[in-house]
Amino acid sequence: MSIIGPLKLNVQILGADGPAISPGKAMVLEAVDQNGSISAAGRALGMSYRRIWLLVDALNSSWVEPVVVTRIGGGSRTSAELTHFGHLLLTNYRAVEAEMLAAARGPKLDWLVSSLRVVAQG
Amino acid sequence: MSIIGPLKLNVQILGADGPAISPGKAMVLEAVDQNGSISAAGRALGMSYRRIWLLVDALNSSWVEPVVVTRIGGGSRTSAELTHFGHLLLTNYRAVEAEMLAAARGPKLDWLVSSLRVVAQG
Repeated sequence: MSIIGPLKLNVQILGADGPAISPGKAMVLEAVDQNGSISAAGRALGMSYRRIWLLVDALNSSWVEPVVVTRIGGGSRTSAELTHFGHLLLTNYRAVEAEMLAAARGPKLDWLVSSLRVVAQG
Repeated sequence: MSIIGPLKLNVQILGADGPAISPGKAMVLEAVDQNGSISAAGRALGMSYRRIWLLVDALNSSWVEPVVVTRIGGGSRTSAELTHFGHLLLTNYRAVEAEMLAAARGPKLDWLVSSLRVVAQG
């Protein structure tokens, strides 16, 4: 979810079975990228291993190329990382979102925000 | 909800108790404007009188001015219409949404859409 002050934006790109990318899925990709495994991404986001795994599995089946790959490491550790395609997906999605947020700024949004009775804390 | 092909946009402006305006609330305002009463707006949208009334009541308490006014007409009919402020709210919200959608267009969105395994029907 992206925010400018009280403006909240939810951008989805729809595949066959609902959103192929969404604020929630992008957040999962960022957590996998930063934490290096499904389980560590789950801990970072306060989500179960199973929930993250299902989201990653849905991502991998929604796009023409895999988005996340997992590798059995030394011992029992399984690492996970974004593919080159996964990085492009995340970068392009975040860029489209940022362009949309930038386009929202202006006198019409200012009028809306200044007309709120109570402005939410963003 | 606004759509370009498989891109779905949900823009909210948050007040004290959640979205002060959202795709759903804008749709209710349009239905009241076009149908002239809460009950006719409900029939047009397939929503109960009570649900529409609660949304209109929330709209009226979220902004610095009333958004919808109701009037007892001849007989038992109660009409509802947007105030001048309500029209401005709807117009400005739809304009911000349209500017955001226009800003989404370009090579990055094209890349995302062409990388979907299956494109949803918008």
